[in-house]
Formats: sequence, structure tokens, C-alpha cells
Amino acid sequence: MSESLNIAVIPGDGIGPEVISEAVKVLKKAVEGTGKQLELTDYKLGAEHWLATGETLPEETLAALRTHDAILFGAVGAAPGDTSIPSGLIERELLLKLRFSLDHFVNLRPSKLYPGVPSPLADPGEIDFIVVREGTEGPYVGNGGVLRAGTPHEIATEVSINTSHGVERVVRDAFRRANDRERKHVTLVHKHNVLVFAGHLWRRTVEAVAPEFPEVTHDYLHVDAATIFMTTNPSRFDVIVTDNLFGDILTDQAGAITGGIGLAASGNINMDRTAPSMFEPVHGSAPDIAGQQKADPTAAILSAALLLDHVGLSEAARRVEAAVESDIASRDEMTDPRTTAEIGDAILAALA
Amino acid sequence: MSESLNIAVIPGDGIGPEVISEAVKVLKKAVEGTGKQLELTDYKLGAEHWLATGETLPEETLAALRTHDAILFGAVGAAPGDTSIPSGLIERELLLKLRFSLDHFVNLRPSKLYPGVPSPLADPGEIDFIVVREGTEGPYVGNGGVLRAGTPHEIATEVSINTSHGVERVVRDAFRRANDRERKHVTLVHKHNVLVFAGHLWRRTVEAVAPEFPEVTHDYLHVDAATIFMTTNPSRFDVIVTDNLFGDILTDQAGAITGGIGLAASGNINMDRTAPSMFEPVHGSAPDIAGQQKADPTAAILSAALLLDHVGLSEAARRVEAAVESDIASRDEMTDPRTTAEIGDAILAALA
Ligand SMILES: CC(C)[C@H](C(=O)O)[C@@H](O)C(=O)O
Ligand SMILES: CC(C)[C@H](C(=O)O)[C@@H](O)C(=O)O
Repeated sequence: MSESLNIAVIPGDGIGPEVISEAVKVLKKAVEGTGKQLELTDYKLGAEHWLATGETLPEETLAALRTHDAILFGAVGAAPGDTSIPSGLIERELLLKLRFSLDHFVNLRPSKLYPGVPSPLADPGEIDFIVVREGTEGPYVGNGGVLRAGTPHEIATEVSINTSHGVERVVRDAFRRANDRERKHVTLVHKHNVLVFAGHLWRRTVEAVAPEFPEVTHDYLHVDAATIFMTTNPSRFDVIVTDNLFGDILTDQAGAITGGIGLAASGNINMDRTAPSMFEPVHGSAPDIAGQQKADPTAAILSAALLLDHVGLSEAARRVEAAVESDIASRDEMTDPRTTAEIGDAILAALA
Repeated sequence: MSESLNIAVIPGDGIGPEVISEAVKVLKKAVEGTGKQLELTDYKLGAEHWLATGETLPEETLAALRTHDAILFGAVGAAPGDTSIPSGLIERELLLKLRFSLDHFVNLRPSKLYPGVPSPLADPGEIDFIVVREGTEGPYVGNGGVLRAGTPHEIATEVSINTSHGVERVVRDAFRRANDRERKHVTLVHKHNVLVFAGHLWRRTVEAVAPEFPEVTHDYLHVDAATIFMTTNPSRFDVIVTDNLFGDILTDQAGAITGGIGLAASGNINMDRTAPSMFEPVHGSAPDIAGQQKADPTAAILSAALLLDHVGLSEAARRVEAAVESDIASRDEMTDPRTTAEIGDAILAALA
């Protein structure tokens, strides 16, 4: 284990810099006394950077990012109505390019309803599950095209690509995580009655991997049914494993039922450690509230805890989570008048 | 307008026959006095029929179905664990084959929180929107394949096909329906920041069609964000237009927030009337409760109301809806001990 912990920080756009600056405060504090020397390097990337320079993610920057132990990522993207940036450009050429280039095959998104947090569900029960979303293939590969664009005969295709290599590693990861949890249950979510080719690959893979984990049970849900259970009985979920697109949809819904994506953390993890993993709040750049100290930095701080876990500082990660929990328990969500920095400071104080 | 109303009935599997028999009772009553002569023809199709005969949807049956004014459809499909039927076979070779062969391009799914129905949302507000789901293309086309199946080098693809013909007709239908509604608002749901090719076709089409409806406003949501609003603020929706897969996912979630898919009706509509449209509850065949008179026939009955609308008997459709509303208002959902037939009878009585 090296003495230094070398973290790349990409604050990004909108509320990204605000929430990341709180996460960095907490990260610094959490690393104190672990024997590690935290070194942070800021990278200016995102929509604003593109507007200023025309760069999304230059090869040299990507190469530099590879030298770090992990990446802490804020949020990127222009305001929805902003037409000065081609739609989706920053998402694809920066965020997805990072996930794909650094082989972040496990997109890990824990969902927990913390005590004291009001859920929009009338009777949420206990919610504590993780979604293991595949991060490097599926409908996200950018494969497809357009024929006769703009004419009455236009045809546009999107190709979802799924490989046994890609599916197996993420399914095995889900079972491994389930094995470490109390309930030890994996739910595969797909739509195999319609998406037969990909669906059968996913199902067969689950059946092939399951025997390696004799204590882990598993079941299957179509994605449409999964959104129903997410509403009526989210306690039924322990570990969900699913593809890139279904995972995108379900984790936003999961964020909503656990009190909003202001609390939802995520890790884009390369479990083979051939490249640095990246930790980011599930929320976006929220340009409408940017620069006003209105954003909740909790998701970014919890993402920093996932980062600590990944780099082997699990004890520090647990302390950050406990600090967040104690802060959340003391909130009056309806009237929490605190600024972004004040929430960060409170969590920092709870950590000390 | 012909004197006879010629309806094909496909009860199907599981709870299908039970709920359809109530819908038929109500349909008969509702048509009385409209001057139309109701003629019903039963078609035995579904998983059980396949097990008995090996037939999914023979060409002659499809040809016979084409001669009807409309189709009333229950539910099809085997129990989830049943391995005697190849997974998805009945869904694809019967249900989807009907939707595609009969060019059911508008998959209409209204969502309404009826007074008296408990929602799983703590603060649902008023929910009254419709989803216009594209029904004949997108990821549902069955295009794709598998290479090196069952090996460590397997590749499985799914191709979503989107055409300007297909997108434009459903977008125009959504605007037309919005124009007839009070709030006159269309929300396009897609994921154009990732699914660029299809996403841009959808967006451009909305922009091209919108000027035809100067009173209708419109906005856009990514599908992941849409699931959040469906949880936190479903009142924001008036008319949603979306593709086949996103529509599948969102309408199950919409069913859940409005009190369960036991109430959710749908129409698979060929707006050009080149083939009969088909009306079916959103729920499935629920084999676990089949034959026990436990299923709620309301979704099937509301689907019959959509059928009446489609064949020009709007006044009868309104009467069925009013009867359902009055029955629902009198329910104690928590302790409704009524059988399928008793609920049907109560709605029938309210209609009289
Ligand atoms: C911004 C977008 C490309 C991204 C995704 O779709 O993965 C986001 O929604 C997420 O979930 O991280
Ligand atoms: C049974 C299945 C093929 C179908 C679909 O995916 O369309 C169902 O979920 C529905 O929504 O009607």
C-alpha cells in the first residue's frame, strides 16, 4: 500500500463545484490519521470548459487521469434549454467516455432510506438495496445510425451490444456483493420476454454464476414490474443487477423513493483495477440552482465514502457514512435552511 | 355506421377469462339502447391453447380477427416459473404479433387516480394523464441476434428501429389528444443524450409537429428523470408521448402510483382504421390468483370503455366510466372482500 492517495477531482458544471468542495473537505478530514497522504489534482472539464476551449476530454487529459488512484466527479452538462452546446455532447464525450475508457463495468448505486428522511412513498418500509448497473455496454455503446435524416423516410437505429464477458463480470460482482450482505439476494432485472437475445444472455449468465454462491438466492423481474415493486414494496430488493439503460432508469426511481437524488451516491468501478474508478453523485449539474449554495452535498460526500471504500480505507468510509447519518437524523427536511457549505460543515463536525 | 358491432374476444390465460367475462357483461349492457347490435366471437388463444395445440396465432385466425370491428383482449402468458413454454413465446408470437400485424401504432394508456383510491404515494395530488406509447417499432421489433451463443465470446444485440413514419404518426396523435384536453400539454420522454440517433428523430419530430397545434405546449424529459417526477410530482403530466420500451416501463409505474394495475386500461389503436384495434388491461395473466375470483375486473371494464370510444359509442363509454367511478368511490380498498364477479355486478348495477 503506497503512502499517498492520489485523487483526481473533476468538479464540472453547475452545482458540481459546490458539492465537490464539500466532499473534498470531508475527504481530507476522513483520511487524516489513516497513514495516507491525500494528494488532490483538479481537472477542469465539462460544458463550461468546452465552451471556453472546444475540448471535451483530450487524450492527454485521459492519460493523466489514468495515473490517479481514483477520481471524484461532480456533475457535468449545460442547462436543458442551452442550445450553444450540442445536446448530449458533454455526457457522451466526457462522462460516458470516462466510464467506457476506464472500463467502469460496475456502476454501483446504493439506495437507502435513512432514518428521518421523508420518502414520497406513503408506506416505504425499510429501503436498503444496491443496484449493480452494468456500465460499459448495452444500449449505451453509441452504436446505431441514421438513414435519410430529416426526410419522411428517415430510419434511426440504436444497437444494444451485450457480451458474455461484460455480463458475466457484472453478474459475478452482484452475487459477490450479495454474499457479503445480510439478505444475500440478487434480483436480475431485464425484459427478456421482448429483448430475447440480450435477455437470454443475462438469464443464462445468472444461472451459470449462481452456483458459485450457494448461500445467495436470486429471482427475476421484468423492468416494468420492477418499477411497480419499487413503488409498492421496495423492501423486497437487496441487490439488483441489470443493464446500463435499465439501471439508469431504476436508480433515478430509487433515488426518488429514498428522499431524492440529493442523497444518492454512485461509483463507476473498474473491479479489475486496470484503471482508476470514479465516484459521483447520481444527480446532474442542476444549472437552475447553481452558484446559490442551494444544492445538498450529501450525495457527493457519500460518493467520497464509496471512493474511500474502493481505495481500501473502509474504516474511514464507515466514519463518513456515520457522520452523514447523524447529520441526516438531525435534519428537519421540510425546513432545512442550510447552505451547501453549512451541510458540509455539519457533516465535517460530526466526523470529528 | 353499420347496425352491428362485431367484437372479437380473446380471454387468454390466467385471470384473463375471469376479468373478460365481467367486461363482456358490462359491454353488453352499455351497448343496449345505442341502436347497435353487439356480436361477440370468442377466440381461444394463449399459453394454454399453445400447450394444447402448438398454435400461437395461425394466419387464418389473424385473418378472421381482421374482420371484426375491434378486439377485447384479456391477458396471456404462463406462470413465470413454467418451463414448459419457451419464455416470451406467447408474448411475442401472439400479443406483440397482434399489435404489429394490426398496426396498433398508438398504445394508449390513461392514468387517473380515482377519488377514493389509495395511492402508494404519500402526497399524490391530482393524477390524470395519458401515455401515448408507440406500439409498432423501437426496441420491440425483434431485430438483433446472437453470435457464439453459450460461449465465453457470446455477443447478443438488440436493435431499436425508429422511423419518421412511425414516430410522426404517434407524435401527431399525442398532440391531437392534448389539444382535446384541458391542460393541452405534451411531454416527450426519451433519452436523447445517450440514444442520439433515435432521440434526435423523436425530438425533431416533436418540433416539426408542434406548430400544427398552436394551443398545445410541450416539454422534454429524459426517461430517468420522468420516473422521478412520476414519484414526486405526477400532476405535472398531461400527455406523455414516448417509445415502445420507455412506454412499457412508465405505464407500469403509472399504474402503480394510481392504485395498482388492477385499474389500468389500455388500447392498442390503429388510428388509420386499416385493421381492428385491440383493448386490454395493462395487467398480465397473474396465474398465481387465477380461477379464484380474486382479480379486479376494473381494468378490463375500463378497457371496454376505451373500445366503445373507439367504435364511436362515446356516450356509452362515458356511462361505463361513470359506473366504474361510482363503484370505486364506494369501495373500502383495504377490505374489499368482493369477488371478480361481484365487482362486475356492482359496476353493471351502477350502469343501469
Ligand atoms: C448524464 C447521463 C449520460 C447519465 C447516464 O445516463 O448514465 C446519468 O443519467 C447517470 O445516471 O449517471
Ligand atoms: C407482455 C409484454 C410483452 C407487454 C409489453 O412489454 O408490451 C406488457 O408488458 C405490456 O405492457 O402490455
